Amino acid sequence: MAKHVYTFGADRNEGGASMRNLLGGKGCNLAEMASLGIPVPPGFTLTTEVCSDYYAEGRTVPAGAVAQAEEALAWLERARGLKFGDETGLPLLLSVRSGARTSMPGMMDTVLNLGLNDRTVVALEKASGNPRFAWDSYRRFITMYSNVVLGLEHAAFEAELERAKEGLGKHEDTALSADDWKKVVAAFKEIVREESGKPFPQDPREQLHGAIRAVFESWNTARAVTYRKLHRIPDEWGTAVNVQSMVFGNMGDDCGTGVAFTRDPATGEKRFYGEYLINAQGEDVVAGIRTPQPITETQAQGTGLPSLEAVMPSAYAELLATATRLERHFRDMQDIEFTMERGKLYLLQTRNGKRTAMAGIRIALDLVDEGLLDEREALKRLDADSLSQLLAPVFDPQEKEKLRAAGAFLTKGLNAGPGAAAGVIALTAEEAEARAASGPVVLVRVETSPEDIAGMVAAQGILTARGGMTSHAAVVARGMGKPCVCGASALQIDYQAGIVTVAGRTLKAGEDWISMDGSTGEVFAGKLPAQASEVNQVLVEGTLKPEGSDLHRCFARIMEWSARHKKLHVRTNADTPHDAKIARAFGAAGIGLCRTEHMFFDAERITAVREMILATDTEGRQKALAKLLPMQRADFLGIFEAMAGLPVTIRLLDPPLHEFLPVDDEGQGEMAKVLGVSVETVRRRVAQLHEVNPMLGHRGCRLGITFPEIYRMQVRAIAEAALDAGAKAHPEIMVPLVGAVKELTWLKTELLDEIETVNRERNTAFIAPIGTMIEVPRAALTADKIAVEAAFFSFGTNDLTQMGFGFSRDDAGSFLPEYVGKKILEDDPFQSLDQEGIGELVKIAVAKGRSARPDLKVGICGEHGGDPRSVAFFHRAGLDYVSCSPYRVPIAILAAAQAALDA
Amino acid sequence: MAKHVYTFGADRNEGGASMRNLLGGKGCNLAEMASLGIPVPPGFTLTTEVCSDYYAEGRTVPAGAVAQAEEALAWLERARGLKFGDETGLPLLLSVRSGARTSMPGMMDTVLNLGLNDRTVVALEKASGNPRFAWDSYRRFITMYSNVVLGLEHAAFEAELERAKEGLGKHEDTALSADDWKKVVAAFKEIVREESGKPFPQDPREQLHGAIRAVFESWNTARAVTYRKLHRIPDEWGTAVNVQSMVFGNMGDDCGTGVAFTRDPATGEKRFYGEYLINAQGEDVVAGIRTPQPITETQAQGTGLPSLEAVMPSAYAELLATATRLERHFRDMQDIEFTMERGKLYLLQTRNGKRTAMAGIRIALDLVDEGLLDEREALKRLDADSLSQLLAPVFDPQEKEKLRAAGAFLTKGLNAGPGAAAGVIALTAEEAEARAASGPVVLVRVETSPEDIAGMVAAQGILTARGGMTSHAAVVARGMGKPCVCGASALQIDYQAGIVTVAGRTLKAGEDWISMDGSTGEVFAGKLPAQASEVNQVLVEGTLKPEGSDLHRCFARIMEWSARHKKLHVRTNADTPHDAKIARAFGAAGIGLCRTEHMFFDAERITAVREMILATDTEGRQKALAKLLPMQRADFLGIFEAMAGLPVTIRLLDPPLHEFLPVDDEGQGEMAKVLGVSVETVRRRVAQLHEVNPMLGHRGCRLGITFPEIYRMQVRAIAEAALDAGAKAHPEIMVPLVGAVKELTWLKTELLDEIETVNRERNTAFIAPIGTMIEVPRAALTADKIAVEAAFFSFGTNDLTQMGFGFSRDDAGSFLPEYVGKKILEDDPFQSLDQEGIGELVKIAVAKGRSARPDLKVGICGEHGGDPRSVAFFHRAGLDYVSCSPYRVPIAILAAAQAALDA
Repeated sequence: MAKHVYTFGADRNEGGASMRNLLGGKGCNLAEMASLGIPVPPGFTLTTEVCSDYYAEGRTVPAGAVAQAEEALAWLERARGLKFGDETGLPLLLSVRSGARTSMPGMMDTVLNLGLNDRTVVALEKASGNPRFAWDSYRRFITMYSNVVLGLEHAAFEAELERAKEGLGKHEDTALSADDWKKVVAAFKEIVREESGKPFPQDPREQLHGAIRAVFESWNTARAVTYRKLHRIPDEWGTAVNVQSMVFGNMGDDCGTGVAFTRDPATGEKRFYGEYLINAQGEDVVAGIRTPQPITETQAQGTGLPSLEAVMPSAYAELLATATRLERHFRDMQDIEFTMERGKLYLLQTRNGKRTAMAGIRIALDLVDEGLLDEREALKRLDADSLSQLLAPVFDPQEKEKLRAAGAFLTKGLNAGPGAAAGVIALTAEEAEARAASGPVVLVRVETSPEDIAGMVAAQGILTARGGMTSHAAVVARGMGKPCVCGASALQIDYQAGIVTVAGRTLKAGEDWISMDGSTGEVFAGKLPAQASEVNQVLVEGTLKPEGSDLHRCFARIMEWSARHKKLHVRTNADTPHDAKIARAFGAAGIGLCRTEHMFFDAERITAVREMILATDTEGRQKALAKLLPMQRADFLGIFEAMAGLPVTIRLLDPPLHEFLPVDDEGQGEMAKVLGVSVETVRRRVAQLHEVNPMLGHRGCRLGITFPEIYRMQVRAIAEAALDAGAKAHPEIMVPLVGAVKELTWLKTELLDEIETVNRERNTAFIAPIGTMIEVPRAALTADKIAVEAAFFSFGTNDLTQMGFGFSRDDAGSFLPEYVGKKILEDDPFQSLDQEGIGELVKIAVAKGRSARPDLKVGICGEHGGDPRSVAFFHRAGLDYVSCSPYRVPIAILAAAQAALDA
Repeated sequence: MAKHVYTFGADRNEGGASMRNLLGGKGCNLAEMASLGIPVPPGFTLTTEVCSDYYAEGRTVPAGAVAQAEEALAWLERARGLKFGDETGLPLLLSVRSGARTSMPGMMDTVLNLGLNDRTVVALEKASGNPRFAWDSYRRFITMYSNVVLGLEHAAFEAELERAKEGLGKHEDTALSADDWKKVVAAFKEIVREESGKPFPQDPREQLHGAIRAVFESWNTARAVTYRKLHRIPDEWGTAVNVQSMVFGNMGDDCGTGVAFTRDPATGEKRFYGEYLINAQGEDVVAGIRTPQPITETQAQGTGLPSLEAVMPSAYAELLATATRLERHFRDMQDIEFTMERGKLYLLQTRNGKRTAMAGIRIALDLVDEGLLDEREALKRLDADSLSQLLAPVFDPQEKEKLRAAGAFLTKGLNAGPGAAAGVIALTAEEAEARAASGPVVLVRVETSPEDIAGMVAAQGILTARGGMTSHAAVVARGMGKPCVCGASALQIDYQAGIVTVAGRTLKAGEDWISMDGSTGEVFAGKLPAQASEVNQVLVEGTLKPEGSDLHRCFARIMEWSARHKKLHVRTNADTPHDAKIARAFGAAGIGLCRTEHMFFDAERITAVREMILATDTEGRQKALAKLLPMQRADFLGIFEAMAGLPVTIRLLDPPLHEFLPVDDEGQGEMAKVLGVSVETVRRRVAQLHEVNPMLGHRGCRLGITFPEIYRMQVRAIAEAALDAGAKAHPEIMVPLVGAVKELTWLKTELLDEIETVNRERNTAFIAPIGTMIEVPRAALTADKIAVEAAFFSFGTNDLTQMGFGFSRDDAGSFLPEYVGKKILEDDPFQSLDQEGIGELVKIAVAKGRSARPDLKVGICGEHGGDPRSVAFFHRAGLDYVSCSPYRVPIAILAAAQAALDA
């Protein structure tokens, strides 16, 4: 028969730290601590498998588990020398607490003092010699049990307690006597009878099994489900139940309870840190009824509060020693719960403490310096995404508090893109662009869309009233490394009037300043000085010396270690020398995607582009393209110089031609005037180029095949720029949207001919590898054929996701959120690669491609290149490199190292 | 050393019929005939491999082949007892002819009388004792050689010959004497010198090698390339070259030449049939300078022309005996070339004769009756597509000729959809719909688009001025079994004026009749009586008894045989009882795709649909859906009855909701009025539902997940209709556009709940299998997961092609034709399944699906289900059924049998 129950403490530790999946974090660590000889009240754990069985068997605890729990209880009685439900001597009381594989703080339920009833409370009163303690414990038990197991609201009990205190003229719970509590208990029981229609259960066994069931039920409360979704915890894991003999922090003034962190969870600083209360149970510390007191003297300085260190020096010394031992044992910062019963210290829980991103980085690095971790372990522990905190601009914290004190705090939205930004409000992208020249601007919109991109580039930060962490604004801003606060729904934006109303204030666009912190989601009226992060000041702006920045030192160490362990190369997606330089400073090993179309949108160029589009024959197109040639050549030259010595993968023109034409009457009229043609001509061409599904239309290499002169111009620009730049230029030519090998064969003939022509003209011998994007499912499926022609593959996982799922990124907003909400999809596949489906295409393409060309270089240049989980997948899939936006480069580097270390 | 040259005739037959790939059709059959003892002038064949080598080696005949050809020539001289280039005795003369693996009539080049020059012609004159023959042969040789090898135009020679005849006062070539020809030869040689800058080559060996090279070159002339593309002949095959000793049909009146078919190539009737000329060479028969004469007495009756049977009875008897023998030997109708030299018969070529589709069917069936073929062989020989000829409506041939005689012939377009149609001209789909009630209509358009569908349904036939065999009009018309003539570019259509101008006539829409034959492409002014095909009269209309139709007998035999051999089931795509009945009469084994959305477009229903779309909450939608329920139920009941006893796969709603809303102001205004809401409300909803890429948007099961009440209504209608219909109803419920298994899991819970509700209400136990379309690439890639939930798969290869290629069917017109033209793709993948890429997805899905559910039923319901090559692929891929439009059902049945027989 399967083992459903594991005991801990009292020299029978059936579990241990390695059994986390079965016993949950709390259960396995209790057993581990007990094994180390640390004082832990004994108890037993019902496994997470029992939770699964509970749901599988129609919400019933299986008989086998019930029987084993009874056996364990009998053992526990023997171990403690007490009887559960004893009405004559000191009764054994229990705590029943949840404990999942991973910590879900506050998400699930706990019942303390279980086993009390109208008779055992009297036995407890006698045996403890402390009536107040006994009745205080009973009222606590009734409240918790009624809430957790019987589903009654706290409020009724709280109101009753308030009423009682008023009647007694007492303010503090601690002021109530045993008799007072006795009356409260009677009133509480009456509430239970009224609200639940039944008397409060008096049978301790019924109480125990009710509490166990309630913990299993708590796995599926709405808040627990939401928490799991947010933290990507599978529903199948389930929770364990820990049944533990009670020790009491509320038995008198030589008792107490508290929580402590072995290091500062906010900053990561190495200092013991925590709070406690004398004569209290755990809930009092967090409930806020009494003010918790500092643990250490250092903490206590200036507060006037007595520290544990001062009040109970020996207990404190033992706590500190135990905490230090636990940290060394678990080799991570610990979050500890403890109780002192009549001066004796008990540990009730230890776990790796939650921490801020910054603290996570600092702790990991310190633990290496302290010899507790090696750099591999430290790298594996880091949250790769948290590196973005090191790169984002920051507000001076004191200035921020000043503004808050001045009443300038407006609202809090989602912290969608880390970093601080301040600027004059702009309500449209055009306005943002126009004003940016004369000073910093914050773009404030209900939501953003692709046509706002230029405005987003121009703005210091983006603030939206609607949309979540994966909204357009959030995704694009993070990609740009721009601060972004999303879904600040308190904002009321009136585009017509040009005003924003929030928190009773009205702010005027073009006049008033607004400041936003994308790391916290806070928004303030007024102007907060923001500054580049120290890392940026050192690496990008050069305004700070490396030795002047501790943050930069952290960053540099992580990058150095990562570089040592990662297998994947990390390149960047960059279309300008500016972006290329930033990415290079952050460690990019080249450009994986240089989009040439962005160069076409520039004001002076778009006219030539449009002239080309209007041309009715090859000759006309060539004439217009000749105007673009010198500009493209200059673009490439700049990028080759910024990336000197490193490879630069240039993608030939990809978007459909209609994207370069104006859609509105005004724009079309203007275009007609500039080009000296009739508006009718412009309109006709726009109509002609209109597509029902532009995503699946005349774009990518399809354009290159119908209008080879476009690609010829681009390849000529590449060749000429590379020849001008000399040996430092390493261009790679990438053909987009190939689905059939013959597309590539046909185009290569054209491109090589153009290169040959340049070489003849210049008497040179320029060559460049020609490769292809793999972004059409058919390309992945026929990759063995395509690899024969392609020098390299670069996965375009954005399009591969769009086509593989049949999801238009522009339209999926109408159902994707619902899909993620209903768990039909685990994630938005545009955020994190769908490894099961789209990943299968990647694997097929890599295997087939390398079967035909064993030395095929394979990379990925979609947005997934900066997503740590996707990076891990690409590592496992055997890719050579990932390419991501400049500000994601460090994250990808760390993620690549983590992936290599996990392998 | 590889063998490059194979001899035939004169008892050294190195080849044979089995070596077609190496020797080409002509070469292998010459050897085969010679082996049978049939008189064939000896010669030799340079293999098709030499052609490949020729191109591989930069258009040079490899030295090895040259050497072997020289050896073979030496053998040929010995065999004939003549010398090539002999200037003293009778010289050996040669013919040099192409011969590919498959016949490409008239596509490549031939040179006769090779070896003549200014001296050998004199030797020939002396040795033959027939100066006129010698000089006639020489002038023929100069003309052909100049054209084929030197690339000079025929026209100059023809003009010179005309001039000469005028000067001599002679009209017929036969009237020219030896001296006349001598002068013509001199003039011809002068033309060659002038045009090519060099004298006519006098060296016979130079002539021979030039001719061989020219034949290899002719493989890549534009017309040969086009022909291959049209007939799907791979470029790699290459052509062989046949060098054969000349026999002469132009040596006198006991000589002649001709061609014959062993059966009538037009009707398939079993009668010997052909044409010949006395004292002529082969080219004369086809050149039309002299009127060819009938071979048989039967043919000659009433023509006043002398038949070969009458003129040369013994040669005729030998020819007939040989032809009969060849037909029995090759077990197929033969197309023969022969020459009589001084009364002796020689066979120059035999091949399986080209024939019309109808003749193909009849000959195959007759050969079975004659014991030459068994039914398997007969089935394999048939062109499955040709069955459509048996189903298409027809004109009375005599009535057609009467109209032609009356000058009513207008133009000829592409025969895009077989069948005859006549009706009043309608220039818009709306007009066609409106007029169809009062009489037959032909829809005449520049081209058609999806919104014309209703008009196409209403019209008898579709005639377009633009577009090819795979244009929208052609594809849709064939799917409907409608006659269609496409690309009739002579038509000038003025929509505004409502007139069509063609061949100097002006026809008025709404008044004038037009008649079109989709089997021939002919278009006539006026009204030709068209009638349903005999097969339709028997099977669908019931107006003809089976025994009254020979065509039906043919059809029924083919269907009966096919049913015996095929493995695939063939279902139909049908949305109405009418279509279901037709398909069933044609042998459909059920419905593989019943699209429910078509039922929503009906005038009285669209209002309820729009009401549902405008509803802002579930309740409002349910109210509108309640109105649709009885109508859908009635639709399904009718279909279940038409398909009594057979499975009916019903696809739940698929298109995006915006397809049901009017796009223009007028329609939106009307809708607002009908629904009693403001136009603004309608407009807002239209704008809200607008999608950038509707193909990849909110449709299919995504709709079912966001609006489960829609699918619930449909499933309720299915369940209620099935219960009303009783045991004969076998519905299968199909969920469209599934990409992730959880979509199906989620929806199944909803659908089963609705079915359960119906069962509770009616106290019944209705069940139906629930399966899914596989039309999203991700579904194919994760088919093992999906198969756990799906009772069956049905491939939607249209969408799978769109997403797999990233081609929007609506937009690919801007590049797909160019792709096919440039051979980047072999075919339009929407016409014939792309087996390499999309087929790979099919194979992956079948393998993965069956790995999870070994008894998974798998079908396909895209348009490829009616394409014979695709059907063969689906057979090989192990599918259970294909489903296609009703008029393609017989074709799919035959194709399925052919696929099984090919396995």
